[in-house]
Amino acid sequence: MKSIYRQTYIADASRPENDSEHSWHLALMAMLLSEYANEEVDILHVIQMVLIHDMVEIDAGDTYAYDPEANKTKREREEKAADRVFNILPEEQAKWMRELWDEYEASETKEAKFALSLDILHPIIMNDLGEGKAWVDHDVKERPVRDRIDRMRPGSEALFQLASGIVDKNLDKGTILPSDK
Amino acid sequence: MKSIYRQTYIADASRPENDSEHSWHLALMAMLLSEYANEEVDILHVIQMVLIHDMVEIDAGDTYAYDPEANKTKREREEKAADRVFNILPEEQAKWMRELWDEYEASETKEAKFALSLDILHPIIMNDLGEGKAWVDHDVKERPVRDRIDRMRPGSEALFQLASGIVDKNLDKGTILPSDK
Repeated sequence: MKSIYRQTYIADASRPENDSEHSWHLALMAMLLSEYANEEVDILHVIQMVLIHDMVEIDAGDTYAYDPEANKTKREREEKAADRVFNILPEEQAKWMRELWDEYEASETKEAKFALSLDILHPIIMNDLGEGKAWVDHDVKERPVRDRIDRMRPGSEALFQLASGIVDKNLDKGTILPSDK
Repeated sequence: MKSIYRQTYIADASRPENDSEHSWHLALMAMLLSEYANEEVDILHVIQMVLIHDMVEIDAGDTYAYDPEANKTKREREEKAADRVFNILPEEQAKWMRELWDEYEASETKEAKFALSLDILHPIIMNDLGEGKAWVDHDVKERPVRDRIDRMRPGSEALFQLASGIVDKNLDKGTILPSDK
């Protein structure tokens, strides 16, 4: 988890951040931002989910949110990874971890929806702090970012509004490019 | 937190780990090892404590456990940091974070004692995985390591036994040096 680097940079944009850093940050956000969930959430459950949600990337690697090709094979690669990684643990814990990850992936419970809101918000905030470097690196366009942050709404309308304002600002700054008409 | 590097290395010893990585790892350990606490603990409370316990190092820097000079000024530097760092948050959350940190530092509640056990165990495990590199770098001797792991006992006798075995092994290997008689 400490050696799997994401496309997003740390706040000063000096280097990419890795999965363990991202997961710590999400857990802290879960602690401090849970009042903005659409429904009251079990914070422990949200934190446990965000702490382990990216562990499948130990085998499957990080899949950039705005890479359509890589996203085609993501599910298969991650399912296979989950089968191996969680099963390193004793049976009962392996089952628990797998259930937590499946719950996160299904995004049906209020806790999973809120965890997803945080997971989408986090790189938006980091990219904004880093002057949009990760967006600029990849010529990211408005439409896929809008589509992505729309997925925050079932978990947190308030945090979606925050993300939406950050996207507006970066569109004005030119760090996110307008989509073709 | 992502730019404050510790004396301990990541598992492959390729680079030092930082505070956010250490904190994520402790939170995961809290999830998976709570059955080894001496008393039944509130896991959410332990996780929240370990997620924020090193945030004072944003201003105070990391103080190596086996550096007696730096440890003389640690408390003062960290108190000052806590006054600033947590107060960036709204008042109610600032108060909550400060209380969590004070609770961790006082090491009186069963959750704080268990959190400390994890905090001491973690670098022992990492150093062992990394062939003792951080111990060798600093010519670390048996006595201070034994004194340090003794502080795990109020939180987890079982995890103390685990740490003790790792110290025995590294003393045999020569990665921890015998103390002068």
